[in-house]
Amino acid sequence: MADAFPELAPPLRILMGPGPSDVHPRVLRAMSTPLVGHLDPEFLKLTDATMELLRRVFQTRNRLTLPVSGTGSAGMEAAFCNSVEPGDNVLVCVAGLFGERMCDVAARCGAKVARVDVEWGRVVEPEQVAAALKAHPAKVVAIVHAETSTGAWQPLEEIARIVHDHGALFLVDAVTSLGGVPVEVDRLGIDVCYSGTQKCLSCPPGLAPITLSDRAVEVIHRRKTKVQSWYLDMSMVERYWGQERLYHHTAPITAIYGLYEGLRLVHEEGLEARWARHQRNGDALHVGLMAMGLELGAQQGHRLPVLTSVLLPQGVDDAALRRDLLTRYNLELGGGLGQLKGKAWRIGLMGHSSSETNVLYALSAIERALREVGVVIPEGVGIQHACARLEMG
Amino acid sequence: MADAFPELAPPLRILMGPGPSDVHPRVLRAMSTPLVGHLDPEFLKLTDATMELLRRVFQTRNRLTLPVSGTGSAGMEAAFCNSVEPGDNVLVCVAGLFGERMCDVAARCGAKVARVDVEWGRVVEPEQVAAALKAHPAKVVAIVHAETSTGAWQPLEEIARIVHDHGALFLVDAVTSLGGVPVEVDRLGIDVCYSGTQKCLSCPPGLAPITLSDRAVEVIHRRKTKVQSWYLDMSMVERYWGQERLYHHTAPITAIYGLYEGLRLVHEEGLEARWARHQRNGDALHVGLMAMGLELGAQQGHRLPVLTSVLLPQGVDDAALRRDLLTRYNLELGGGLGQLKGKAWRIGLMGHSSSETNVLYALSAIERALREVGVVIPEGVGIQHACARLEMG
Repeated sequence: MADAFPELAPPLRILMGPGPSDVHPRVLRAMSTPLVGHLDPEFLKLTDATMELLRRVFQTRNRLTLPVSGTGSAGMEAAFCNSVEPGDNVLVCVAGLFGERMCDVAARCGAKVARVDVEWGRVVEPEQVAAALKAHPAKVVAIVHAETSTGAWQPLEEIARIVHDHGALFLVDAVTSLGGVPVEVDRLGIDVCYSGTQKCLSCPPGLAPITLSDRAVEVIHRRKTKVQSWYLDMSMVERYWGQERLYHHTAPITAIYGLYEGLRLVHEEGLEARWARHQRNGDALHVGLMAMGLELGAQQGHRLPVLTSVLLPQGVDDAALRRDLLTRYNLELGGGLGQLKGKAWRIGLMGHSSSETNVLYALSAIERALREVGVVIPEGVGIQHACARLEMG
Repeated sequence: MADAFPELAPPLRILMGPGPSDVHPRVLRAMSTPLVGHLDPEFLKLTDATMELLRRVFQTRNRLTLPVSGTGSAGMEAAFCNSVEPGDNVLVCVAGLFGERMCDVAARCGAKVARVDVEWGRVVEPEQVAAALKAHPAKVVAIVHAETSTGAWQPLEEIARIVHDHGALFLVDAVTSLGGVPVEVDRLGIDVCYSGTQKCLSCPPGLAPITLSDRAVEVIHRRKTKVQSWYLDMSMVERYWGQERLYHHTAPITAIYGLYEGLRLVHEEGLEARWARHQRNGDALHVGLMAMGLELGAQQGHRLPVLTSVLLPQGVDDAALRRDLLTRYNLELGGGLGQLKGKAWRIGLMGHSSSETNVLYALSAIERALREVGVVIPEGVGIQHACARLEMG
């Protein structure tokens, strides 16, 4: 019987999949701190500091900026179910699995969903959004900033302008981008923006930072119907995180301890330096993979440094190879999702996982594993090119 | 600037409010373990073991028994939004704030809600349920097992029989009871039962264990409409926790590490011994409080050992006194909710917090604080009676 429930002793992995990424040791230490209550004045001070740190990483002064008590997908649901009422028109830009998910979530909120579709791996062009809005006026336009299924980095500036000219709310998924590349909520006028903690913030999965513009808050306050989710109803959640400190649900204290420490690390490093680190390591990985003859999944010029999609050479057995990397090298890479299942890997360099060490380790393990199954790659070519790139800057 | 975001250093409290309760040190240690991925074979083994341990504490063989990725309130929402479709009739038993919350949540799922109301602090009588079902046939009957707002312990056996005779699903909130008093899912035929980790399981808030009978699962599979919450849709969630291991949302790995350790502690102690510990300490607290001349909030014969509601003597300033207990004694007690705000305290003896030490410490601190504001209490009378009760068994 004792054997059925052994001591917790998981292997030590290097997490370079699409998330979770490696959690910083200081975050883990923070999460072993004994708890105070969720209405304790000392905890309330901590929630204030956490909100302020979140505003900085979202680059916003939005009052309503807080972690939703669920994973990134709960953030997506909170974004839609608060801003959308049954019968509202919503335009969703779909360039991968998470755009698809947005359509499903929005429809479950009762939205009439129109779509802009592009091939997976490509980004949405502003003209497509303008044309779609002309054909289907919408209350909310939604888009994924960093499409985790393809590695594409969606430019937002022109689309934001078009959405605002149209008078719609601009809703952005920043799950994989926040803390790794710039997320400019105020400058672009993003109205609803959510993220997750397990990507570029170096925390475990479990919280979904979200920020809402005053305009979005006004839309929520003027709703004719109740938000269908009691748990995610921001008009109630804001009364706990705001001045009233009214009990809604018990805040996930330990997760917030971890997030606070993760955000302190962002603050200490500085946003500019953090983005530069992610860019530099991502560039080196891209150069290394291409030098090995591999093809990247995302459109050139729009490749995320934090999440890289790489196409597998013909005939390579995805599952067997990733299992080999996991068990022999303790290296976790992600498989392809949806139409890329079995055909691509997803390599994350997010938060604490974004390091030179990890770039070189992953390139070396991938080269070895591919050579072993007969893929022709000149020895060390990926690492050489990556090193050259790293030395450049 | 550094001062604005100081090192995380919360005070060390003794958590005897309505939750969170004190987290066991072994759970905290487990939560500082470096993460593996949510699709790692080693993590999937851990999810299997966690489900099996959850089945034991729920006393069920239900296949679909898992932690929902949110706090107890997310468990409530998952329970209703999966079992209820728009237009369905739901009967809710309301004996406190959490019964009220059930009505709100069910209505947001589109249910037509009928209620059985009883005075706060009392339990619902089986005849009331029978009469209500006669007047308002229902698909689902919902009730709170341990009403955290009043401290009342709801008997379930006869009501379960009535609900089943009627052919309805029986939905039970066990947030405050699971792991502290018996929750007999299979013997009573409870169809949907959810809890929280931050009460009698000695874990931080953040997960909501839930179990669904095969009958409930069948109802979900036969739905005509999609579950309105994508995040809490059990027909999707079960495909990750089941054989398929299909990605839905990223599991909150660290919280599950903690829950696994918390459930191992339950398993090591044994359910019978654990219930006996909670009963013994709860009895001693009740005896001690009454010896001090205080009145308990819940109906005699139906008082929870894990959560005690006690009425404040006339003229005592609730907020000032609890602040005093918190800052001078590091003792957190809960205030009254809803109609009991300012008039009652709620004292938790849940999980790791349920100890003789805590019973005696709390009685001593409460006596001292009340005497200081002029309440006449013979010195040491509460502790004497509590000790006598503890020695009895």
